[in-house]
Formats: sequence, structure tokens, C-alpha cells
Amino acid sequence: MKKEFMDAAVALSKEGLASGLGGPFGAVVVKDGVIVGRGHNQVTGTNDPTAHAEVVAIRDACKNLNAFQLTGCDLYTSCEPCPMCLGAIYWARPDRVFFANSRKDAAAIGFDDDFIYQEIPKPISERSLPMLHLPHQEALQIFNEWKIKADKTEY
Amino acid sequence: MKKEFMDAAVALSKEGLASGLGGPFGAVVVKDGVIVGRGHNQVTGTNDPTAHAEVVAIRDACKNLNAFQLTGCDLYTSCEPCPMCLGAIYWARPDRVFFANSRKDAAAIGFDDDFIYQEIPKPISERSLPMLHLPHQEALQIFNEWKIKADKTEY
Repeated sequence: MKKEFMDAAVALSKEGLASGLGGPFGAVVVKDGVIVGRGHNQVTGTNDPTAHAEVVAIRDACKNLNAFQLTGCDLYTSCEPCPMCLGAIYWARPDRVFFANSRKDAAAIGFDDDFIYQEIPKPISERSLPMLHLPHQEALQIFNEWKIKADKTEY
Repeated sequence: MKKEFMDAAVALSKEGLASGLGGPFGAVVVKDGVIVGRGHNQVTGTNDPTAHAEVVAIRDACKNLNAFQLTGCDLYTSCEPCPMCLGAIYWARPDRVFFANSRKDAAAIGFDDDFIYQEIPKPISERSLPMLHLPHQEALQIFNEWKIKADKTEY
């Protein structure tokens, strides 16, 4: 862990705030002591609810590294990742995550992170979001085709 | 709910499988009876670990609707959303979600959805992913600046 990388993530959060593109969040991805991906939140400015700082930084790092995995990388973020970003981190598989502000700090300035953390583990029927299971024979068949596909790239 | 929209999501999952760009997942966003966003998984083909079908469809719908919220929309997906996508859905705020295959079906063909669902609710210290809290004075100060900012767009 190096303080300069957290400073870089925080500087991006400040840049994002000043840009007016979204919330006050910044993140960097670091590999072998070098920043390989950067992002600040740009949800409202780009009409993309998934454009959180961590997602933007992960996408930037993967593009720069020409890879869909962040093995050997660390992620520094100015705030504890929300569940969407934490999920993105699990899929990208960096080695470690460092965060500054907490989800409670985010809740205190009006962000839903904590609420979404409460919702995700609930059984589907108990969530505030209506979700309906519609089994579909062909959907299952396509899963089976993936299972037996010989030339697939797993992730 | 209309079966034609789930059929469209499943058709996209098939298209994605055939394309070789990623896993066998498809999704559509529907507003006022019309498909306004489409997506299939393209994680490996575009080097983007966040390019799950639901995320791609949400981003496409938001672009087409020129909005960062999906109020009044339904999301149809060929598989129960993973935690990243479920988080994205909470941020995009569609009215309802319909899904075909379940997370257990996804686990059975080798996808980590179920594992990530187990990890997200855990206390930070108990997750398999190392996460370290590094409080940072300026990061908190930037949160306070957001809180008092007069011309912000909330989301």
C-alpha cells in the first residue's frame, strides 16, 4: 500500500466533483507500482448509472492492459465500493482493495450504498424491487450449450 | 409481463453465445411495450469484466432514453442477475425485473454468481477479497463539499 495511490484516487474524486459529471468518487488501479486505470463517477453527466468510479477505473485498466482480469493489481478507491462495484471487483479479480470513506459516510451524504447492501442478501420475495422468476426452456438449453462448448473463454 | 420480451432476452443470450464475445446471457429493457435497450454478455471479447448482459442493456437503454434512471421500465434477463448487475439495477431503478435461469443454474455451468452473493453481505474482514480501510481526511472533506454543493444533480 502506498499513500500516493490513495491520494490519486482522492484527487480524482475532487476532479469528478468539480466536473459536475457525477458524485464525489474516484478510483485508480495499480499494477507493479504504476497506475494503469483511473476513474471518477460520471453517472449523471454521461447518462450511465453504472459509471461509478471503480467501474470506470476497472474498465480503463482492462482496456490498457488488454485483459479482462486484474490479477496482480490493487484497486484504490476514495470510498468503500457499493455492491455493484464490489461485484465488478469480484469479477475483475484484483488482489486487494483499499478504500478511504466508508459506506456509512456515503449514506450520510445521500447515497444508497447502505440500502443496497441491505437488499442484495434478501430472498427475492423480500426485496423492495419486484423480481419474478419466469423459467424458460430455451434459456436453460443455451446454458447447456455453453457447458459443452469446446472453444469457450471462461471468466 | 409479456413472453415476447423474455424471448428477446433469450435470443440475445443465444446470439452472445454464438458470437464468442462472452457468456450465454442476454437482457432487454422495455418501456411502454417497446424494447429500448438490448445487451448480451461481452466480457471476454471486449476485455470488460463489467460487460454483463444486464449492464450492457441498462447502458444502452439509458443512452437511448437520454436518462440515467429507468423509471417506468422493466428489465427482462435470461438469468437471475449477479450481485454486480443487481446493484446496477438498483441504481438504474427500473420498476420490475423478470428472469429465466436462476443463480443456481449459473453456478452449475461454472459462473461465480452464487459465490459472490455469499461474499457481499459478509463483514469486510471475513471476505476472501482483502479489503483495507484507509481513512483519508481530504476524501471526507470532498464528501462534505458534495453535501453542501448547491447545483448538484442527485441520483
